[in-house]
Amino acid sequence: MSELINPFDDNYFMRQALQEAEVAFEEEEIPVGAVVVWKNRIIARAHNQTERLSDVTAHAEMLAITAAANAIGGKYLKDCTLYVTMEPCTMCAGAIFWAQVSKVVFGAADLKRGYERLDPPVLHGKTEIVRGIMQAECQAIVDEFFQKLRK
Amino acid sequence: MSELINPFDDNYFMRQALQEAEVAFEEEEIPVGAVVVWKNRIIARAHNQTERLSDVTAHAEMLAITAAANAIGGKYLKDCTLYVTMEPCTMCAGAIFWAQVSKVVFGAADLKRGYERLDPPVLHGKTEIVRGIMQAECQAIVDEFFQKLRK
Repeated sequence: MSELINPFDDNYFMRQALQEAEVAFEEEEIPVGAVVVWKNRIIARAHNQTERLSDVTAHAEMLAITAAANAIGGKYLKDCTLYVTMEPCTMCAGAIFWAQVSKVVFGAADLKRGYERLDPPVLHGKTEIVRGIMQAECQAIVDEFFQKLRK
Repeated sequence: MSELINPFDDNYFMRQALQEAEVAFEEEEIPVGAVVVWKNRIIARAHNQTERLSDVTAHAEMLAITAAANAIGGKYLKDCTLYVTMEPCTMCAGAIFWAQVSKVVFGAADLKRGYERLDPPVLHGKTEIVRGIMQAECQAIVDEFFQKLRK
């Protein structure tokens, strides 16, 4: 008997988010990427564009949330999962809360600016959170970016 | 001897932010308004547009920060003051941090969703904060909005 394999697991979608981070890297942006998934379909994908847009609010998650709301035709992302390569910052976690995103999956932790430091917790208690998917790869691309910057 | 009166004080600019909140009220948006001031000049003004844009990220402060960055031609708002009728939420405070806004002036407190509940503090320690300017008026327009909604 062979086991059925679901190709659409958290690793699959994180790999898509990581592809977005790679696009950001090529564009000399801090390489963070995000996708929003609804019923196993990617309805939005985005990468950090703070430099290109000269706008601190243009984090991957913010752009992905706005794009997903456009795709759905409503501002709440209740049955959606946000995949993002880095732990969201305070701003992005606030947006995730307002958008009522059901599930958040992130890769690398961000001990300095990540939302998980904050008390009381920023995300809704019912939000499902999965941490550390493809953590090494998600961290490596950011490390590589900053090493290159310092040269 | 007569005293010189500076017409451009915190009350003056908060009144401008409140005018933006009034526009939001007319548009059936939660009535919050904001302006960004640089050298006594308003370089951006915005009101909450979450309904119109169907986008939870379209808070007055977020739109004002993006518009101010466009006006300045750079993403940092170092010598700017943000006036906003309500205490910023977690998301907006995160954006204020990233934008390095020098001074934040808000009207009414938001005990439920405001950033001041959070620990560690979300804003930079050097950010000047002025609370409660035109507090009664800023709160009244929000109360009126929700009373009207319940009818």
